[in-house]
Amino acid sequence: MKRTAYFISDGTGITASALGNSLLAQFPGITFDRVTLPYITTPAQAQEVVNTINQNSARSEQRPIVFDTLVNADIRQIIRQADAMNIDVFSAFLAPLEQELDTRSSYSVGRAHAIKERGRYSDRIEAVNFAMQADDGSRTNHYEDAQIILVGVSRCGKTPTCLYMAMQFGIRAANFPITEDDLEFAKLPAALAPYRDKLFGLTIDPLQLAAVRHERRPDTRYASLSQCEFEVDAVEKILLRQRIPHLNSTNFSVEELATKIMSEMQLSR
Amino acid sequence: MKRTAYFISDGTGITASALGNSLLAQFPGITFDRVTLPYITTPAQAQEVVNTINQNSARSEQRPIVFDTLVNADIRQIIRQADAMNIDVFSAFLAPLEQELDTRSSYSVGRAHAIKERGRYSDRIEAVNFAMQADDGSRTNHYEDAQIILVGVSRCGKTPTCLYMAMQFGIRAANFPITEDDLEFAKLPAALAPYRDKLFGLTIDPLQLAAVRHERRPDTRYASLSQCEFEVDAVEKILLRQRIPHLNSTNFSVEELATKIMSEMQLSR
Repeated sequence: MKRTAYFISDGTGITASALGNSLLAQFPGITFDRVTLPYITTPAQAQEVVNTINQNSARSEQRPIVFDTLVNADIRQIIRQADAMNIDVFSAFLAPLEQELDTRSSYSVGRAHAIKERGRYSDRIEAVNFAMQADDGSRTNHYEDAQIILVGVSRCGKTPTCLYMAMQFGIRAANFPITEDDLEFAKLPAALAPYRDKLFGLTIDPLQLAAVRHERRPDTRYASLSQCEFEVDAVEKILLRQRIPHLNSTNFSVEELATKIMSEMQLSR
Repeated sequence: MKRTAYFISDGTGITASALGNSLLAQFPGITFDRVTLPYITTPAQAQEVVNTINQNSARSEQRPIVFDTLVNADIRQIIRQADAMNIDVFSAFLAPLEQELDTRSSYSVGRAHAIKERGRYSDRIEAVNFAMQADDGSRTNHYEDAQIILVGVSRCGKTPTCLYMAMQFGIRAANFPITEDDLEFAKLPAALAPYRDKLFGLTIDPLQLAAVRHERRPDTRYASLSQCEFEVDAVEKILLRQRIPHLNSTNFSVEELATKIMSEMQLSR
């Protein structure tokens, strides 16, 4: 059984697809084709979308599902004509919110992911630059400015997690790889010592680590299971001994890692 | 007038806050304090949340707004007791979806941002690694593998846009800075010539560019308005002459830039 899900928006489509995917994730037995249609702002574009949906519907056994975050009621009205099930966020929630807030909605299109406060937006971009520069153990002289420093073996997920925290939440996140040289002495690299309170460890299942490393440098000692087991075990011992909070990244997405770490380290969004 | 908005979730809270912020963006006249409470999975945690909300409510003139994406109906029921306006996504949409799909929801917690398909998730992480490595004109020998190559003057927004496309959509995005040396000859750098179809230009208001560069290297020629004007003008001429699609990044967020570029270049999500 396969259904098409459309995420339709007058802006980026990010909210519509986040919401739609959240709901669809509750039906793991059904396979969905997902189509995001952003920047639908004119009746003509909306009518084209309806035609697309109807063509899909005509050749499918089941009608498509449409998730939309369209601010303009006229555009919504056109989309609603499509032969599809319609989950319409603004129709459901905007009226009760207007009542609660005792204010009319501005009905302004594409606001969700626009730059609303230049300062706050600049912070996010600066955080991304920080994460880029403080990646992989570089710029330790800027650790004073870091809000968090992820530590762990090479390829355990530090870099994407840092970038996600920076991009999404404006967190200045550095990361520092713990290498074999450090493990020899079974203690934290000296560069990290002054920043104990900012450290957070990532560990990983050695099997998965070996697979990831193998992709990068096939058939090397670096990618061998025995080496991965040794490194992970040694790093875990350091993290435990030093009482550094840590998390096993194996089964978590960057979204989950970032939000769990921020919760635990009490970094606010 | 100031209100508190809570985004409550049994998972990362990303969907709840995306949805809540989308709706709140329609009320630009009201200032909201935003609090995200992720990983609320037990009745005890939910009760604690209710206490927090009620305390806030007691000391505020207006009751808080609660946006939640809680899968578990028992937890939702507890949250609903709070003295707040409740916008409850799963209550609104899950039942009609169950009916439409003729399937019971799995009611599984924290699915929205979990790793659902390992392959698709790995593609995103690989794309992030690609964007990191192909940042700022490096690794042009890997442009064969790029899906898009952003070009523009230094500090016009290429790097965060590439990282966002990679992180969010798994797009392999490279970026190449056009420097003064290139501008002397008023043509594209030779390294880009074989990849004409993958090029997308970013331009920027010279005033904003000067401000951004000034943050980085104050009072340099690099950051001077005249230099920024010269570079932007010269790059725009090249983009126009070479008919390379482009966008002015000045007033757009990375989310908007990424989704607009992907639309125009027909890169699917």
